[in-house]
Amino acid sequence: MKAIILAAGKGKRFNEKEIPKPAVNVCGVPLILRNIFFLKKLGLDVVVVGGHKFDRLREILPEDVELIKNNSIERGNAFSVLCAQNKLKGRFLVLMGDHVYTEEFLRKTLNAPANSAIVCKESDLIHTDEATKILAREGKILDIGKEIEEWNYIDTGAFLCEDSIFKTLNDLFCEENHVEWSDVINRSDMNVYENEEPWMDVDMKEDLKKAEDLLMRSLKKDEDGFISRHINRRFSRSITKRLVNFNIEANLISIFSFLLCIASSLFFYGKILWIGGILAQFSSVLDGCDGEIARLKLKESKFGGFLDSILDRYGDAMIMLGMFSLLKFNFLNISILVAALFGSLTISSTAWRFENDFKEKIHTHEGWIRYIPAKRDERMFIIFLGGILGTIWLPAIFWSLFIIAILSNLRIIGRILIARKMRVA
Amino acid sequence: MKAIILAAGKGKRFNEKEIPKPAVNVCGVPLILRNIFFLKKLGLDVVVVGGHKFDRLREILPEDVELIKNNSIERGNAFSVLCAQNKLKGRFLVLMGDHVYTEEFLRKTLNAPANSAIVCKESDLIHTDEATKILAREGKILDIGKEIEEWNYIDTGAFLCEDSIFKTLNDLFCEENHVEWSDVINRSDMNVYENEEPWMDVDMKEDLKKAEDLLMRSLKKDEDGFISRHINRRFSRSITKRLVNFNIEANLISIFSFLLCIASSLFFYGKILWIGGILAQFSSVLDGCDGEIARLKLKESKFGGFLDSILDRYGDAMIMLGMFSLLKFNFLNISILVAALFGSLTISSTAWRFENDFKEKIHTHEGWIRYIPAKRDERMFIIFLGGILGTIWLPAIFWSLFIIAILSNLRIIGRILIARKMRVA
Repeated sequence: MKAIILAAGKGKRFNEKEIPKPAVNVCGVPLILRNIFFLKKLGLDVVVVGGHKFDRLREILPEDVELIKNNSIERGNAFSVLCAQNKLKGRFLVLMGDHVYTEEFLRKTLNAPANSAIVCKESDLIHTDEATKILAREGKILDIGKEIEEWNYIDTGAFLCEDSIFKTLNDLFCEENHVEWSDVINRSDMNVYENEEPWMDVDMKEDLKKAEDLLMRSLKKDEDGFISRHINRRFSRSITKRLVNFNIEANLISIFSFLLCIASSLFFYGKILWIGGILAQFSSVLDGCDGEIARLKLKESKFGGFLDSILDRYGDAMIMLGMFSLLKFNFLNISILVAALFGSLTISSTAWRFENDFKEKIHTHEGWIRYIPAKRDERMFIIFLGGILGTIWLPAIFWSLFIIAILSNLRIIGRILIARKMRVA
Repeated sequence: MKAIILAAGKGKRFNEKEIPKPAVNVCGVPLILRNIFFLKKLGLDVVVVGGHKFDRLREILPEDVELIKNNSIERGNAFSVLCAQNKLKGRFLVLMGDHVYTEEFLRKTLNAPANSAIVCKESDLIHTDEATKILAREGKILDIGKEIEEWNYIDTGAFLCEDSIFKTLNDLFCEENHVEWSDVINRSDMNVYENEEPWMDVDMKEDLKKAEDLLMRSLKKDEDGFISRHINRRFSRSITKRLVNFNIEANLISIFSFLLCIASSLFFYGKILWIGGILAQFSSVLDGCDGEIARLKLKESKFGGFLDSILDRYGDAMIMLGMFSLLKFNFLNISILVAALFGSLTISSTAWRFENDFKEKIHTHEGWIRYIPAKRDERMFIIFLGGILGTIWLPAIFWSLFIIAILSNLRIIGRILIARKMRVA
């Protein structure tokens, strides 16, 4: 299926002389490129219709995107669709070029039946005054426009059409010189399809910050542990927000996070426990940033994930060794160290091995076992607490290693039981 | 595509009153079931034509296999194919029910063009006297039979046919009452397709041992390390050969291998180093048996692999802890222990993570890095040597941990470089 992105308009309220609105950076990437990236990921071919500042648009678009020029943008945005008529057969998706969509929004949109306007309910992401509203009854559109008085949906700027719509489009241009896409929708027999996933219209410069927040909120990973979800992500997101507009590679952050682990280890070794603990926790926060930045900049790489996973493990081992240097070197303590290190390293590997064997993510099967805090964010938080408490009461170091040893091995045993259940299921 | 297995014959030379030859156990599994298992794995539906001891055959066949009875086995084995005429449309595979095929043989057979007799050259697996021979020129069969004087191929009992062959089959049965499948081939316009993967014909009871050896030899795993390939597999196979006909579950062997690790650890702890070393090595040999038995008995399970992988890791940690108890408890030694344990645990996890990320096996990319001995079989062998040498020279224990620490971490770094190259490729 093809998607057509309407990117010819002037964006009067946006106040940007140099670049067309769809080319404006949001989280370090021109917003149209993010939409194109998601569309391709979902298997669509993309056609872009440009007009205003056309050459600038051409510069940023990747080669495998078809770019068409609309030389009469004064005839309304429906004319852009007309320009692409011979490229669009069967079903196709129409998107406004200045809207920021999340991947989830677009994924869900593809589930809509043919001839649907994708709509949503009013929300604080939307300037209701400026938005195009829709009145629908029993799933059918009765009216659409910015100024209509009675309405029950907001238009999201996404439409799943069939090429039969070109009949209406041509009819309208026979009648009038200027036609807006909403006029075409009004004249066609269209359904509404509700999609509550986030999106927003970038109307003014002030919207850019809101759009970045929107994308930032969509970063949560299902596998996140408790600490990551409730503490680390807040910090990592605000760091990410600052870093994303600089030219910093995600792998560099992975390496920096690893260096923090070494520093933490050295501070433990040097008996400045509270700094050791804080650095461990800070490293754990930063460990979220590399992935966030990679995803926001559409530069997620297999190598990046692989490197990060190994550096994390080295980091874990270094910190534990540093902590251990504070304890008595007897066989019991050494056994606790081995058990804690073993548990830490094996928690993540069981997840990978499980995915290899069962082709599913283990966290979707973990049930109550996921409440045993043993993921990296959770272990690092225990180390952080150990470092802080250890400053006034040294045995806290022993106990934090002990707790990690117990919890992580418990969770590993829990995972064996899960795999066993999978066999029966 | 369908496969038809001809399992109606009496097997006169086989001397077995109670069960039909295809139902005879080879490595703990009736030989016809192994062929059916492989065929299904390759995506084929299976039709079996039985006759002699039909009820016994029905008992052992799984429900999703179509079983047809040939009530006139005295009319030759071609009559069995005729019995299945209305089940076989388009292309189908004909297999002799008393042949032992390897999975690789069947996989390669499916690459043959239509209307091919799958053939091989003479080998020591084959009783040339008893075999059906084929004379072919320029890929076409000129003659086929047990008694022909001039021949250049051996018939493997596998034929990739099209349903047009039923014309010939029906013609032949109009002319004669008794028709052998080789008569049908002789009358048809068939090609030869050479397949050098192993198979064999079970003619006499003495062939069963040879067939077990054949299957045993096909067990090699591509990921095997140097020690496993050249030492462990020899021992593990001969153990497997003894165990496979008993009702022992593969997981039980995994657990026993883990218990040997604990025993090894305790002997190291108890300062009887040579027993510790030998037990570690023996555990490593047994670690091959669980997979071998599971594969031979067609009971390879995801849970089994998962459990084995975790128990191996616990075993590694236990043995190293036991060895460490012999060393001075100073920070340098503890660091070596941590590095050795880290390396041991991370070698396998990088392989899993790599497979998750890149959807390929890392060993196919390792190049010269695979000569750094750090896989489990190789590490266990170093521990074995450490235990033996340590009996007369205690520092050998330190050095074996040290060597494991260096080699495994080197190989991990090598794997990071491989992943980096994958990005560029």
